[in-house]
Amino acid sequence: MSTIKRIGVLTSGGDAPGMNACIRSVVLTAAAKEIEVVGFSHGFNGLIDGEHRTLLPYHVQHIIQLGGTILKSARCPALHTEDGARTAAGTLHQLQLDALLVIGGDGSFRGAMAIAPFYKGQLIGLPGTIDNDVDGTDATIGYATAIDTALDAIDKIRDTADAFERIFLVELMGRHSGFIALSAGIACGAEQIICPELGLLKKGQLDSVIRPIQHAQLIKGKSSYIIVMAEHCYPGGSTALAADLSEAIGIECRACVLGHIQRGGSPVGADRILATKLGAYAVEQLMQGAHLMMAGEVNHQAGLFPLELTGEGKKNIDPYLLNWQQQVAND
Amino acid sequence: MSTIKRIGVLTSGGDAPGMNACIRSVVLTAAAKEIEVVGFSHGFNGLIDGEHRTLLPYHVQHIIQLGGTILKSARCPALHTEDGARTAAGTLHQLQLDALLVIGGDGSFRGAMAIAPFYKGQLIGLPGTIDNDVDGTDATIGYATAIDTALDAIDKIRDTADAFERIFLVELMGRHSGFIALSAGIACGAEQIICPELGLLKKGQLDSVIRPIQHAQLIKGKSSYIIVMAEHCYPGGSTALAADLSEAIGIECRACVLGHIQRGGSPVGADRILATKLGAYAVEQLMQGAHLMMAGEVNHQAGLFPLELTGEGKKNIDPYLLNWQQQVAND
Amino acid sequence: MSTIKRIGVLTSGGDAPGMNACIRSVVLTAAAKEIEVVGFSHGFNGLIDGEHRTLLPYHVQHIIQLGGTILKSARCPALHTEDGARTAAGTLHQLQLDALLVIGGDGSFRGAMAIAPFYKGQLIGLPGTIDNDVDGTDATIGYATAIDTALDAIDKIRDTADAFERIFLVELMGRHSGFIALSAGIACGAEQIICPELGLLKKGQLDSVIRPIQHAQLIKGKSSYIIVMAEHCYPGGSTALAADLSEAIGIECRACVLGHIQRGGSPVGADRILATKLGAYAVEQLMQGAHLMMAGEVNHQAGLFPLELTGEGKKNIDPYLLNWQQQVAND
Amino acid sequence: MSTIKRIGVLTSGGDAPGMNACIRSVVLTAAAKEIEVVGFSHGFNGLIDGEHRTLLPYHVQHIIQLGGTILKSARCPALHTEDGARTAAGTLHQLQLDALLVIGGDGSFRGAMAIAPFYKGQLIGLPGTIDNDVDGTDATIGYATAIDTALDAIDKIRDTADAFERIFLVELMGRHSGFIALSAGIACGAEQIICPELGLLKKGQLDSVIRPIQHAQLIKGKSSYIIVMAEHCYPGGSTALAADLSEAIGIECRACVLGHIQRGGSPVGADRILATKLGAYAVEQLMQGAHLMMAGEVNHQAGLFPLELTGEGKKNIDPYLLNWQQQVAND
Repeated sequence: MSTIKRIGVLTSGGDAPGMNACIRSVVLTAAAKEIEVVGFSHGFNGLIDGEHRTLLPYHVQHIIQLGGTILKSARCPALHTEDGARTAAGTLHQLQLDALLVIGGDGSFRGAMAIAPFYKGQLIGLPGTIDNDVDGTDATIGYATAIDTALDAIDKIRDTADAFERIFLVELMGRHSGFIALSAGIACGAEQIICPELGLLKKGQLDSVIRPIQHAQLIKGKSSYIIVMAEHCYPGGSTALAADLSEAIGIECRACVLGHIQRGGSPVGADRILATKLGAYAVEQLMQGAHLMMAGEVNHQAGLFPLELTGEGKKNIDPYLLNWQQQVAND
Repeated sequence: MSTIKRIGVLTSGGDAPGMNACIRSVVLTAAAKEIEVVGFSHGFNGLIDGEHRTLLPYHVQHIIQLGGTILKSARCPALHTEDGARTAAGTLHQLQLDALLVIGGDGSFRGAMAIAPFYKGQLIGLPGTIDNDVDGTDATIGYATAIDTALDAIDKIRDTADAFERIFLVELMGRHSGFIALSAGIACGAEQIICPELGLLKKGQLDSVIRPIQHAQLIKGKSSYIIVMAEHCYPGGSTALAADLSEAIGIECRACVLGHIQRGGSPVGADRILATKLGAYAVEQLMQGAHLMMAGEVNHQAGLFPLELTGEGKKNIDPYLLNWQQQVAND
Repeated sequence: MSTIKRIGVLTSGGDAPGMNACIRSVVLTAAAKEIEVVGFSHGFNGLIDGEHRTLLPYHVQHIIQLGGTILKSARCPALHTEDGARTAAGTLHQLQLDALLVIGGDGSFRGAMAIAPFYKGQLIGLPGTIDNDVDGTDATIGYATAIDTALDAIDKIRDTADAFERIFLVELMGRHSGFIALSAGIACGAEQIICPELGLLKKGQLDSVIRPIQHAQLIKGKSSYIIVMAEHCYPGGSTALAADLSEAIGIECRACVLGHIQRGGSPVGADRILATKLGAYAVEQLMQGAHLMMAGEVNHQAGLFPLELTGEGKKNIDPYLLNWQQQVAND
Repeated sequence: MSTIKRIGVLTSGGDAPGMNACIRSVVLTAAAKEIEVVGFSHGFNGLIDGEHRTLLPYHVQHIIQLGGTILKSARCPALHTEDGARTAAGTLHQLQLDALLVIGGDGSFRGAMAIAPFYKGQLIGLPGTIDNDVDGTDATIGYATAIDTALDAIDKIRDTADAFERIFLVELMGRHSGFIALSAGIACGAEQIICPELGLLKKGQLDSVIRPIQHAQLIKGKSSYIIVMAEHCYPGGSTALAADLSEAIGIECRACVLGHIQRGGSPVGADRILATKLGAYAVEQLMQGAHLMMAGEVNHQAGLFPLELTGEGKKNIDPYLLNWQQQVAND
């Protein structure tokens, strides 16, 4: 039988749509199991500053559809010191919390692991980030929404690109992985996709970008050309690449950096469902004794995965669609 | 080496968002393999009436984001007779088509199988329906969009339900399965879900519906109550249930039948990507000799599944979330 | 100099997108003028039951984009009795409120007028209803959003109607006026619009509906036919009309009743701006002594209009577009 | 009686949502009057290159909801020479066009006026631009949609800004006017608005920006701060201002340049209705002999305005809301 009576929960790192749905699921599930929940504000800072409040089912009513996070998020440099980690653990002990749930990316999970040596309770991670760069789960909470937000923007850009017969470079988020760029690129029918998995470009190294443009120009009826690129793939980003490209081919290329729009918005159904499932599963697994594990979903089944392996970067983007796009999208 | 030189494609049955993305992928992939594509209009009727046209990459430009189907869809009663099936096969032979791709649900696949005895070429199905009631694939093309369309509507109903502190019954599509109702119900935070998998209700059999409402009314702060129900779960549908419920509990309940809105709209990313992947995969598998198979996706891998098994109804909705919802959503 | 020190605000009748934006504007404007604001819950019921709370700028942060109303809304039958009106006025006196702002439709304004004989303070109305059937303002708060919500739904129905080449009847809200039906009908390119201003239809009186359908059928390439109708224009509504029409012309017609979706959702820019402008103007005019007036906007200018004239129904829908639609939409 | 038998239509300059709705209205209205319509591609370039096609009602079916323009748009430097203008007029004569309708901004109207000396027919302008910087009409076609597109993005940024308690600068389009920035800024509840009407900022001139930020920081509960700014208001745009501001106040400020997203997307109802009304009105007025006039809408009434006055920049943004925002938004 479980001895879990009180747990803490926080959201950390870049916020992602669905974080609120996950908080809600944790609170509702815990309430059904007669477990109390304490929410910390501003990520791990709330642990260090002691900023917290009790979360009842009433507090999470009608937040499933809200973007952002009612607990606020933040980076927390203080946690990188032993002092910070000890203070955080101290707060958990003082509040008599049997466990802490951390909703965030692999950086946030490292934060949880930093606390572990000083904390007697259990630590569980929940993958909340738009970037999908967390091992141990097929998708992270927020990823599906970020794709649809990007798509919505690119569909609009297609309208104007098509009206004006222009070349557009759309830069999407994704830190060191191309998940969002590939998915949004395929889904918007991008003529070209640039992502880390295909290799970073050096300044002035434009051949691989220009060749498919020139190929497409030969084809009758091609009225617009959209390049979807992940951030950090060209020095200076899409703005610099657009300028260099314009000069090299003599056609005006325009850059559009989507930026933080991708983090916000009401989560799509897939994110709300994933967040709900993982939140419930995490509470159940806590009661079974899980510790230093992340609750993820692989092949539609919830499961546990060691926190320390979540950042290894072993999850790859699907090569099938990437290959397909390179073969056919320019026809 | 493949001997596929010319193939036909059609969309059949209830239309679904992503059908155009699938047609596009078939045409682009075929073009890259130097295979010609003929599109038939109005489902199998186009085969019987000989209504068709060549589809080039140019024709499928910028349709990936469009709802509906550029080939139109329809039911085709004529195909249920041997004469109809022979005529359809005759058209395929006359146009020298080595294969036919049918985008639709299991009813449409039965249409394809009806042609098989009279047709020398290959037949492949692609699962295009919002209902997700096709075995052999985790999701059908259109399902993800239908969930998000329903969600978007229910989130709006939540606003007004909450402002007025009312009980609303929202009736969603889904024929004989509760996929849409369950997914949308979980994702909107519905207080109650009624779907075939939990049993159909008889006229006046309201106890199981009323009990959780009364339980919720006891709880402070519950300002609205939304019941998401699949169609065909109560005689007369949600309108009748709302009337009977209003009378039984003395609180005004309102019904909202979402209806055909759920079939339309620009497909979400997940549907565009699934449609693109399966369209490409189907063409490749045709070249490998596939026949009387459906191209589906299971655990993120494209694969083949016998057409004749697609309608067995063995795919079940996830019991985990259904159980969870019944335990906690009313807290 | 104004002697206004404390005012009350409530939302009444059917809720409308933008009511929150209006509450926010009232609170922010009042704060800038050092006026305190008390919000009543559930419309006039909050006055009778004494359910109220102080509203500070902090409470209205980030509500400009929310549908519904943070003050809740309701009908209030008790106000129709002298006792009810006296009780309401008593609450206003007891709380030392110098004025009451009522956000709602003309029915709600009648509620305000019922209190007037017993209340020493000022009464001001703000037109909040999706129906736009309030004289003294070109548009009501919520009307623009309701049109766009209806459009979004009808665009989706167009997708499926077009895929299936079907006739659809879409029933929109609007009580006794055709504002929403006409605007949404024009904006979606409806083939036919049925609204009270063109005359209500009697049971079985289908000629005027059928004639343009038959005319359109003669025209090549017409792949779908959408009739947008206001509620209460045919006995039994769109469902009955669809059934009668199907029988009369032998083509399946489908009905779609949009219902309460039209009341919810995040307000569009036009409604947020109108709500903000009128909320600010109402507070300023209170300070100038306005009483028993509605703050409205005519020709882009805010102005006052007597509350007692708001329900005369003298505002007409623009005949220009209605005539145009009847002349050309079927070509 | 009108002698108009054949007219031309083109879209020119930056594309705007609703241009298709306007083309549709022109074609449908003309058809009802038995006037033929010829559409030119790529703005005035189509006149010079002779790229055109007949537009029948069939061609404009279901385009009312599409962004972009089916006629494509472009700038046309060739028109700035007498040779170019003569060639354009020659094409109009050769095709026996009695009039030309130009949908675009005041730059496009200057193009029309450049042709006038060499053309015997009538010239009419229709205000299609998101910027709303055209005199003679309260709103231009595309303006309402651009506001809502910006709002949709800023609401998402609010989610993440609020989660992270950050300062964001959102840069909107608008060339030399602040219409979009003011409207979107008011409607999103921006804490600060920077637009040309309030004066352009010089490099390093940050006092007027910083003061309200510092004021807001003093206020409890302010969890995010959004500055909406028009383009061209600070050297280097929002990116430079964000960097300078970050350095000056020691708080990280982030810039988001919405860019061309604002031009695309399905037009909102207001733009579809305005485009429909003005398109119909323009054809009717052509038949009455109008020449060198723009069809606009002032106080809900369609009317004519001299083309040569459309670019005088006399239309001002509403000072009421701008003043209000400066007084209260930071409370």
